[in-house]
Amino acid sequence: MRSVSIIGIGQTPVGELWDLSARQLAYQAVSSAMADAGVDRADALFVGNMLSGNLLDQEHLGTLVADVCGLRGIEAAKVEAACASGSAALRVGTMAVASGFHDIVIVAGLEKMTDTVGKDTTAGLATAADAEYEALHGVSFVGLNALIMQRYMYEFDVPLDAFAGFSINAHRNGANNPNAMFQEPISLNDYMRAPLIATPINIMDSSPVCDGAAALVLVPTEWAHEFTTGHHRGAVQILASASANDTLAVHDRHDPLFLQAAHISSQKAFRQAGVGPQDLDLFELHDAFTIMSALSLEANGFARRGEVWLLAQDAEISIGGRLPISTMGGLKSRGHPVGATGVYQIVEVVQQLTGRAGANQVPNARLGMAQNIGGSGATIVTHILGS
Amino acid sequence: MRSVSIIGIGQTPVGELWDLSARQLAYQAVSSAMADAGVDRADALFVGNMLSGNLLDQEHLGTLVADVCGLRGIEAAKVEAACASGSAALRVGTMAVASGFHDIVIVAGLEKMTDTVGKDTTAGLATAADAEYEALHGVSFVGLNALIMQRYMYEFDVPLDAFAGFSINAHRNGANNPNAMFQEPISLNDYMRAPLIATPINIMDSSPVCDGAAALVLVPTEWAHEFTTGHHRGAVQILASASANDTLAVHDRHDPLFLQAAHISSQKAFRQAGVGPQDLDLFELHDAFTIMSALSLEANGFARRGEVWLLAQDAEISIGGRLPISTMGGLKSRGHPVGATGVYQIVEVVQQLTGRAGANQVPNARLGMAQNIGGSGATIVTHILGS
Repeated sequence: MRSVSIIGIGQTPVGELWDLSARQLAYQAVSSAMADAGVDRADALFVGNMLSGNLLDQEHLGTLVADVCGLRGIEAAKVEAACASGSAALRVGTMAVASGFHDIVIVAGLEKMTDTVGKDTTAGLATAADAEYEALHGVSFVGLNALIMQRYMYEFDVPLDAFAGFSINAHRNGANNPNAMFQEPISLNDYMRAPLIATPINIMDSSPVCDGAAALVLVPTEWAHEFTTGHHRGAVQILASASANDTLAVHDRHDPLFLQAAHISSQKAFRQAGVGPQDLDLFELHDAFTIMSALSLEANGFARRGEVWLLAQDAEISIGGRLPISTMGGLKSRGHPVGATGVYQIVEVVQQLTGRAGANQVPNARLGMAQNIGGSGATIVTHILGS
Repeated sequence: MRSVSIIGIGQTPVGELWDLSARQLAYQAVSSAMADAGVDRADALFVGNMLSGNLLDQEHLGTLVADVCGLRGIEAAKVEAACASGSAALRVGTMAVASGFHDIVIVAGLEKMTDTVGKDTTAGLATAADAEYEALHGVSFVGLNALIMQRYMYEFDVPLDAFAGFSINAHRNGANNPNAMFQEPISLNDYMRAPLIATPINIMDSSPVCDGAAALVLVPTEWAHEFTTGHHRGAVQILASASANDTLAVHDRHDPLFLQAAHISSQKAFRQAGVGPQDLDLFELHDAFTIMSALSLEANGFARRGEVWLLAQDAEISIGGRLPISTMGGLKSRGHPVGATGVYQIVEVVQQLTGRAGANQVPNARLGMAQNIGGSGATIVTHILGS
């Protein structure tokens, strides 16, 4: 298997971008990634996207994005795994280069969730859950996460403010990210006074509905130096790439408070990279809801079950802490354009590992992990990158 | 790169299957492919599907199908490339095994187009075209194909009945396929009297709206013999796997009557397999509309431009002819559950190459090609298989 490296990154700002269509967002992200890599062609393009069929009446997104970017005649496809679509597309791009089928591959993540005409975004997001056994019975996607959070608070006797640290950390970091949707820090008081969306989830526990696109350029590691000489601080190697699934419906799981798919995919990733959790310099986790941050950290072995919130309160998750998370604002503050998020996470790890993270730079960052969660933990993809 | 072989196939009958949901269809196809291969586990599952988000309000289909099939903890994702979704999923499955990431991979194609509640299937199919520059202006997917066919008849001065041979051949072959939606032969008179859908396309030029699922089991070729001993006539090797795209919108093409993406992907495939068009024993082409059969045969070098219909009239495309096409009924008679079609094509080539094609068996079939078209020629995937 050929080793694969990332030689270019691109991203649009995240937000309610009413003046940019899906194709315009994709073009901006892909063209800036190609400029960053110094390439003017590609052999294949894989787009991670969840909602274009449901919200935009547009499928065939792989070819659409390739077409808009002037990449005609190449392979193109869309890859979908709900909120993990971006990293699922990176899995495919990685396999395309690793197998030898392609040499220069672009992976894009794209989601356009605002400015949709006559569509219901909440119903769209519910397509990540089981349509027949969850959504049809009236539970929304935030509702499912609220049930999990409620159960967590009950089982582990955790107070209501236990999750505040994740949101405060994300907003503190997002304040320094010019691409973040929310660039304001929040206080514990802001968190405690935030309106509830679905009890016990409040608006500060929850990532926003938004638009955005991000992109990566992949090549075989052995060729990466040919592209990266001179114009930035080097390529980043994909040391591990692993995906695992669980039951789609939460009620089918033996233990709805343990993310089995996170555990399986991170264990696979640690084996592939030959490293352990203690070796990581940063971890971009999937903080779509604060409860997901908690469950992800526990399932991956960073905290004991029921005690993860102490990690947040002790500020071990901040830039200067033992395990910085959501270093550019995470899903909460940078934003969560769902099918694009997995690619944004990788872009941000690359920024950290190549010394391009600005005010949020983790000192001497060499090894970073990203974990992208689809549905309520039903698909979980883990990547470990090294510089 | 590891060579990849297919060791198991499964399929449901195609039709308006009101008593089977999407998950039931997928379960039937995957479980019969696994039984055919003699495997009880898999490392990954990739599902080709186009319309589940739009018509079923269900995304996250990769994990849903894996879950329903009892395949928990593995990698799973949906791959979408409009009507070429099935073969795009096979591309991903092939890369997964070729790269060494996985050893046993299931590729499924699934589409549920009937019995959808409050949904518009015609609008759903139009998501294969450019939503903003084609569909929004009122042209349906069959309308786009009708414009192409009209232009072809004008440019090459071809009579209205020139395309009849493709439909008659498909129905003759479908009559012997127990999984085909239409199992009745048709006459030239039936074709000539068929009601028009979008001039000049009549109902006999057009494939039907329907449901169906098909599945494949892939392993490294070097291990295929371990699985196939005893229970059927052997594995089939994937000798070539190639995809190419073109502009999404038909009006952006230099020549709307030449399928550039078919040409590029089949030339790639011929190079990979080290064979030429003349070496093929059969060709499963994408006869969603008879005009697409014509353009596919011309772009792949099987006929001179404007003269392909002579091939059909001369019966060179029948089972006993020089280049049998649509040997199990094709999209026209077997049916075209869009995201599943690419996998059905491969299942049928495997049936031919392992002597399981029944009354439609192509004598001594050793080398078969399948070509799957997404949109009006915007994504075209070509596979060559050998026994």
